[in-house]
Amino acid sequence: MEQKQNKLSFASDYMEGAHPNILSRLVESNLQKSAGYGLDTYSDSAKRKLRTACNCPEADIFFLVGGTQTNATVIDALLKSYQGVIAPESGHISVHEAGAIESNGHKVLALPHTLGKITARQIESCIRDYLADGNHEHMVMPGMVYISQPTEYGTLYSRDELCSISDVCRKYSLPLYVDGARLAYALASPVNDVSLEDLAKLCDVFYIGGTKCGALLGEAVVIPRPGFIPHFFTIMKQHGALLAKGRLLGIQFDELFTDDLYLNIGKAAVSAVQKLSAAFTAKGYRLFFEPETNQLFIILSNTQMDRLSQHVDFSFWEKYDDEHTVVRFATSWASTDTDIEKLINEVI
Amino acid sequence: MEQKQNKLSFASDYMEGAHPNILSRLVESNLQKSAGYGLDTYSDSAKRKLRTACNCPEADIFFLVGGTQTNATVIDALLKSYQGVIAPESGHISVHEAGAIESNGHKVLALPHTLGKITARQIESCIRDYLADGNHEHMVMPGMVYISQPTEYGTLYSRDELCSISDVCRKYSLPLYVDGARLAYALASPVNDVSLEDLAKLCDVFYIGGTKCGALLGEAVVIPRPGFIPHFFTIMKQHGALLAKGRLLGIQFDELFTDDLYLNIGKAAVSAVQKLSAAFTAKGYRLFFEPETNQLFIILSNTQMDRLSQHVDFSFWEKYDDEHTVVRFATSWASTDTDIEKLINEVI
Amino acid sequence: MEQKQNKLSFASDYMEGAHPNILSRLVESNLQKSAGYGLDTYSDSAKRKLRTACNCPEADIFFLVGGTQTNATVIDALLKSYQGVIAPESGHISVHEAGAIESNGHKVLALPHTLGKITARQIESCIRDYLADGNHEHMVMPGMVYISQPTEYGTLYSRDELCSISDVCRKYSLPLYVDGARLAYALASPVNDVSLEDLAKLCDVFYIGGTKCGALLGEAVVIPRPGFIPHFFTIMKQHGALLAKGRLLGIQFDELFTDDLYLNIGKAAVSAVQKLSAAFTAKGYRLFFEPETNQLFIILSNTQMDRLSQHVDFSFWEKYDDEHTVVRFATSWASTDTDIEKLINEVI
Amino acid sequence: MEQKQNKLSFASDYMEGAHPNILSRLVESNLQKSAGYGLDTYSDSAKRKLRTACNCPEADIFFLVGGTQTNATVIDALLKSYQGVIAPESGHISVHEAGAIESNGHKVLALPHTLGKITARQIESCIRDYLADGNHEHMVMPGMVYISQPTEYGTLYSRDELCSISDVCRKYSLPLYVDGARLAYALASPVNDVSLEDLAKLCDVFYIGGTKCGALLGEAVVIPRPGFIPHFFTIMKQHGALLAKGRLLGIQFDELFTDDLYLNIGKAAVSAVQKLSAAFTAKGYRLFFEPETNQLFIILSNTQMDRLSQHVDFSFWEKYDDEHTVVRFATSWASTDTDIEKLINEVI
Repeated sequence: MEQKQNKLSFASDYMEGAHPNILSRLVESNLQKSAGYGLDTYSDSAKRKLRTACNCPEADIFFLVGGTQTNATVIDALLKSYQGVIAPESGHISVHEAGAIESNGHKVLALPHTLGKITARQIESCIRDYLADGNHEHMVMPGMVYISQPTEYGTLYSRDELCSISDVCRKYSLPLYVDGARLAYALASPVNDVSLEDLAKLCDVFYIGGTKCGALLGEAVVIPRPGFIPHFFTIMKQHGALLAKGRLLGIQFDELFTDDLYLNIGKAAVSAVQKLSAAFTAKGYRLFFEPETNQLFIILSNTQMDRLSQHVDFSFWEKYDDEHTVVRFATSWASTDTDIEKLINEVI
Repeated sequence: MEQKQNKLSFASDYMEGAHPNILSRLVESNLQKSAGYGLDTYSDSAKRKLRTACNCPEADIFFLVGGTQTNATVIDALLKSYQGVIAPESGHISVHEAGAIESNGHKVLALPHTLGKITARQIESCIRDYLADGNHEHMVMPGMVYISQPTEYGTLYSRDELCSISDVCRKYSLPLYVDGARLAYALASPVNDVSLEDLAKLCDVFYIGGTKCGALLGEAVVIPRPGFIPHFFTIMKQHGALLAKGRLLGIQFDELFTDDLYLNIGKAAVSAVQKLSAAFTAKGYRLFFEPETNQLFIILSNTQMDRLSQHVDFSFWEKYDDEHTVVRFATSWASTDTDIEKLINEVI
Repeated sequence: MEQKQNKLSFASDYMEGAHPNILSRLVESNLQKSAGYGLDTYSDSAKRKLRTACNCPEADIFFLVGGTQTNATVIDALLKSYQGVIAPESGHISVHEAGAIESNGHKVLALPHTLGKITARQIESCIRDYLADGNHEHMVMPGMVYISQPTEYGTLYSRDELCSISDVCRKYSLPLYVDGARLAYALASPVNDVSLEDLAKLCDVFYIGGTKCGALLGEAVVIPRPGFIPHFFTIMKQHGALLAKGRLLGIQFDELFTDDLYLNIGKAAVSAVQKLSAAFTAKGYRLFFEPETNQLFIILSNTQMDRLSQHVDFSFWEKYDDEHTVVRFATSWASTDTDIEKLINEVI
Repeated sequence: MEQKQNKLSFASDYMEGAHPNILSRLVESNLQKSAGYGLDTYSDSAKRKLRTACNCPEADIFFLVGGTQTNATVIDALLKSYQGVIAPESGHISVHEAGAIESNGHKVLALPHTLGKITARQIESCIRDYLADGNHEHMVMPGMVYISQPTEYGTLYSRDELCSISDVCRKYSLPLYVDGARLAYALASPVNDVSLEDLAKLCDVFYIGGTKCGALLGEAVVIPRPGFIPHFFTIMKQHGALLAKGRLLGIQFDELFTDDLYLNIGKAAVSAVQKLSAAFTAKGYRLFFEPETNQLFIILSNTQMDRLSQHVDFSFWEKYDDEHTVVRFATSWASTDTDIEKLINEVI
């Protein structure tokens, strides 16, 4: 019952089930009884491991189901009714969440991005322009900052960049929230210098993505300062984000944070992208930019695109010009050497 | 890592993982690649089986994650901004969803219930009172009806009762929505005469519960008339109810609707409740009412309650009088004969 | 162009324009230029007078346009997303605001009322039941209390009753908000013992109604503790409750609080109701209860109702029994002696 | 009690009360009784006159209080939950309504503007890009178009431009909504070729602004096809946009549409701007662009700005470059020749 099996697929990083260790734990624990709604011992254990990994022993941790849900719930919890969230124009919340943020009443204050990133300076300008505007009481007040690590383009904020953003946020008392849907691929990147511990120090809230990083589903929200969001449990419930069988999330994160699985799970995917990138370049394709994590953006002529798409699934990203298109190849923890080799040797 | 293992637990029906067949299918399919967001072949297959089971070959079917999320998403999709949802005062949406319905902008128009049920006559009165009120344009318009089968009390609507409710709804053009979080236990009940096919005929939308009926998580929304809710996919996305790895839901419902598993999975739980009910009665306990599905409500003296609670977990339901309390024992597809026997022979 | 001029009208207290003094001030000031959005000197002057009248020199004061708008804006400003507002079942926000509170995301936690009033004890029970419920994190948290003075039935809270309610609210840190749409009629009542100063001491927010009390439109929100609602100006703007020509509201309240006009404007209306009440009683009609302000509730046989309705407009209130109906006669600052006499001598 | 009386004021067009005819009518009708909530005979008469003026005898017409409220209510009534509103980036709803649109759950899909205007081509591209995007079901669907006539820059859509926009909207079944907060100044402009009748033919909803065009307050929503927005009365109530004393709005619009007052009320303001524009130019100032209605935008050096601002109030608009600023001078129906002459002869 697999999909189009004779075609390679690099369309996304959520095409398989879960890391085998996770499935084993699910099978093994299946008939143990546990409390509902995340109050189970699996979740407790997972939280302890996450706190250790973040070196943040007091952090509040909550497990939610998916990325859009997590973003909508956290952002709604952080903003006052009259505030909006600063985000890159390319951010997931700006473009691909079907207006979930607005549906909770909040404007996304979108800033121009460079390969998915925004800068501390842009954020500060946005806040200052707001404050300097004589009519600012008639406008949406910037109330927090949303960025993602890695970004929609798979690019990374450096530790320095993140420190600057964090400094601006603290200067103006705006919570900083980092979407880590693909965080494992950031942590696995050789060019990354931002650790979980750094995130816990620099952000007010961030989430450690499970869905795209080896779990069946699940995102772990980390709130380094305990109590920073009062009644988050009820807020989750109200947003339909509280899983009855919370154990399903607890077990998975417990396993992902056993023996550093989460820190390592993205490594093969990142190195596969490096290999692919070299191969594409060697064969004369143009990179849109140097890849940093598990996503590779190539500028294809429309002829190339047609030919490749007969053999491999990839994602349309954006029009480059009338004759060229930017496309994305994504690898994942589940990508196999065989598929990579096939793509390199037989297709491109 | 199991919970309080030396104590029996009849606190709820979501304390275990999933039916073993489901886990096997997850393990077996784990590394097959599939499309995201419910567009996978597992979900397609599950939908076909569900349509057959409902004898409704054209039905739109969507898989969501949990009950509160499903209720909030469906109700928000069905109501106009100025409409509210008629529901029993005891309904899940009235009491235990942390205001999720209101958070989407809608009032719950709560009617008094009898053991969790409301009648066609009550619904019609509510609509007529609204229409007859000279100020009704200043009031919330009844826009749909929400009931659950079985109810929060584990009671069942008969086919006749449901037909009458459906008739009133159609007379006034109000969609009828049935919450089937525990539907397997209704279908397994000897006193039930409402089939999936009946639901598909009588309702405008209903959901077949997975979370409490053998799945790890998941609820299948059935919309018998295709296109009745346009753009429900996007509505789900906006509500954070669209799972990236939709295969996880498809695989589970595909398995639940293989070899009538869903129709049978609740039988042992219902018969266990009958056994428990007889045993409690035999030992002189008072039933709150005759159980119909997998939930048993007993009136305990406070002394009895204290004693029992040392040996078994159950749920506080409501105060009966100053010296008595109504408590609930829930069985599930995973309840074991051993536990039932132990409860009967050693505890009560 | 007047309405049905040969029929008396006691249908409501908003059938005329404004107190003549107000119109004079509007005419006189018409071509003076002033700043917009309530930043004009008329509004400043009105605020000073209101602060003096409330003996609350630091109070924040804002002028809004109408009652539903004011309730929706204040309640949305006071509640967290996961909180609801405790209110009498008969409260304006519960019944006659077309779901405005829910449309902002909040549940109205309706308590049974006695002639429009709820008690401190009921409020405390509601809060305690919530706190005592093992599932309260899945429920809507009581977040504030809404009452009105006078109530929908024209009844009054005594100073003692209000103190008790205020005490409970402060004990549980719930803001107390009083809707004073008809406050002038409370202040004019001989049985009233609650002053503006009392309201300022006992409430966290209240509003002094203009629309029904002599103004063309307008409600003055008083927040005794300055800064209690940060950014209320922007919240008003977001709710469409900020008038560009705020002067229109400032001028009216400035005039209403000149020479105690507001304290006296309701007196004739209240004494007219007393006269009417005596006359109805003398002629054998049954009062629903003794009137306290400008609203009189009479139990009419359906024959009486038919006859009276040919000569005078009044409001249907509620069915009393199959043969009787409760109706309401409302007087206002604009009721004339002639009309009262005619009603007494020729109609009833 | 007037403001800063020795300084000229060209800061906005809502600094005075109402046209004297309107005040006279308010005084004259003051003690006539009328039904509430817009069901009065004044409102009926006004609606008849508006329908005649728009040559649209069947139009639904509703009177609301202010611009932000009207925009928020109409847009919320027109959009489905998953839709957004296309608007110019400079639009009032995009910038100066404190997020009122988002607070009702909807994204503003902002397009780059030219002096406040967007084109049919831009709108069509926006819709087509959405439809062509493989992920569009994860995105906010364009659900309607918002423009204003005149725009925030006082510029005008020509009849041809409006026809093209209307054509695109109808081609894709998107309602077209025109914000006419300052419509009288468009109708009074010599370069305008769009009549009320044209608006009624080309738009699905538009509003005729009162607040900035001679009324104390009030905006008249015109829905040319009757029934196009079902239950708009209740939607208004829910948004706090239903005035109890609706007569206040009816009387004003009745007067504004008596003897073509509305068509003429802006003429002096527009010709004053022409005079000012010529005078500024003659004295060597740079216009930002040729004015079309009652707003004049000048590029001042910062030295000029400092000097002028000692004698006259105007609005900061935007930074032009480090040494220049764009400022706005607004005239209104109430601007006096004396003030215009003073500004020309003594100040600039």
